[in-house]
Amino acid sequence: MEWNELKVVKIGGKLIEEEQLLDRALIAFAKMPQPKILVHGGGRSATVLANRMGMVAKMIDGRRITDAATLEIATMVYAGLINKKIVAKLQALNQNAIGLSGADGNLILSKKRPVKEIDYGFVGDVEKVSLSSMIKLLDGKFVPVCCALTHDKKGQMLNTNADTIASSLAAAGSKCYRTELFFCFEKKGVLEDIHDDSSLIEKIDKQLYEKLKAEKRIFEGMLPKLDNCFTALEAGVNRVHIGKLDMLKKETKHTVIAL
Amino acid sequence: MEWNELKVVKIGGKLIEEEQLLDRALIAFAKMPQPKILVHGGGRSATVLANRMGMVAKMIDGRRITDAATLEIATMVYAGLINKKIVAKLQALNQNAIGLSGADGNLILSKKRPVKEIDYGFVGDVEKVSLSSMIKLLDGKFVPVCCALTHDKKGQMLNTNADTIASSLAAAGSKCYRTELFFCFEKKGVLEDIHDDSSLIEKIDKQLYEKLKAEKRIFEGMLPKLDNCFTALEAGVNRVHIGKLDMLKKETKHTVIAL
Repeated sequence: MEWNELKVVKIGGKLIEEEQLLDRALIAFAKMPQPKILVHGGGRSATVLANRMGMVAKMIDGRRITDAATLEIATMVYAGLINKKIVAKLQALNQNAIGLSGADGNLILSKKRPVKEIDYGFVGDVEKVSLSSMIKLLDGKFVPVCCALTHDKKGQMLNTNADTIASSLAAAGSKCYRTELFFCFEKKGVLEDIHDDSSLIEKIDKQLYEKLKAEKRIFEGMLPKLDNCFTALEAGVNRVHIGKLDMLKKETKHTVIAL
Repeated sequence: MEWNELKVVKIGGKLIEEEQLLDRALIAFAKMPQPKILVHGGGRSATVLANRMGMVAKMIDGRRITDAATLEIATMVYAGLINKKIVAKLQALNQNAIGLSGADGNLILSKKRPVKEIDYGFVGDVEKVSLSSMIKLLDGKFVPVCCALTHDKKGQMLNTNADTIASSLAAAGSKCYRTELFFCFEKKGVLEDIHDDSSLIEKIDKQLYEKLKAEKRIFEGMLPKLDNCFTALEAGVNRVHIGKLDMLKKETKHTVIAL
């Protein structure tokens, strides 16, 4: 059997915040062949809006807490403002984009994170991706554009990390497609020294990852992202790419991660 | 050929604003057989949010003007907050709801209203419904939940009246389905005296409508809604219903409109 190729692309950070960078990202994404899925974070827009409404972000031990008001804002900004902006721009590029949260088509079912030392509030840990909804949309030649919200199928929306959304969708897709996952951000890829682009690590496998981790040669902030990568790879994703936008055109060096 | 029946249901006003009424509306909608489409207005939520952000609604000659900031809020509230609330609630009722603006799947293409005496701002007049996207989603057993936003396919979202969205979707659907359109609101239907439920007009055809209009026997605010109904009927919609929620269960008297 010939497997179709699926590409799952996650964009976040400055790529979302700055109009020009977003436009460039969407043009690069538009050039990729279908089937493909775009996942977007929220950048700082939700915080900006919360501030305009006089709200202060709740943090416990440096971690953001999603209370009811914060979830409302996340839903407005991620599923409303940013998602529709991206969908409208992709439509202008002749991409039949369709914006989705995890509730739409029951695409991503999650469970409210249990309260242990910290009550994170309305945060969902992914339980199941609806492969049947995904396939129907991809077969229908739609280009899903997914925001970082899920639901519990009891009527509650939940906030979920966008990297996790991307790796969960890629992992589910890998049951039916030869799947590649792309994490686009501002850096060239995984760097040994985050201030030095020439310290790029071009290829990481599980063994090297464990070694780099043990020797503390990777910036701590990258570890959750890399853990997400290996979770996706172990679930069947063929390859994960981390780097700048240009890697979508396969023109620039970046980090390739495989088992 | 046996025609499938499509039902397009529009809810607005208090049904959106009050949680209990919304829940009742969604339970009634959930009981209807597929294929079906839900269209929702925004109630007063957008105004409430705008006020919380210190904005004042722009009005010219009693008409709301959609400037860029108002469109941002409409996009957040209609496509984000309200749409996802409804989708999550319908998913909890085992409806495979999928939330859409007119940009998603290029469902509703519109054109920015030309500036004549008044510049309405980012308001779109419907040009074309993508019947192919609609059919793909309905055939995929999704339940589309549509908010009152459209796009111009040049990257711009536009604000569009929810009644017009509903009648445009029904009109397009009528090319492939035997289509009925339901406008649910607080009144029992079209009343000769808006303060007296017993003045319900149970059936209106084109001839009676012209007569009632000429004799000024219909509340002026109903005229745009009724014009929408006849536009839909003339485009091929089989029947339009106006009344309280209970009419979805075919239990109560309401106004039926046919050519």
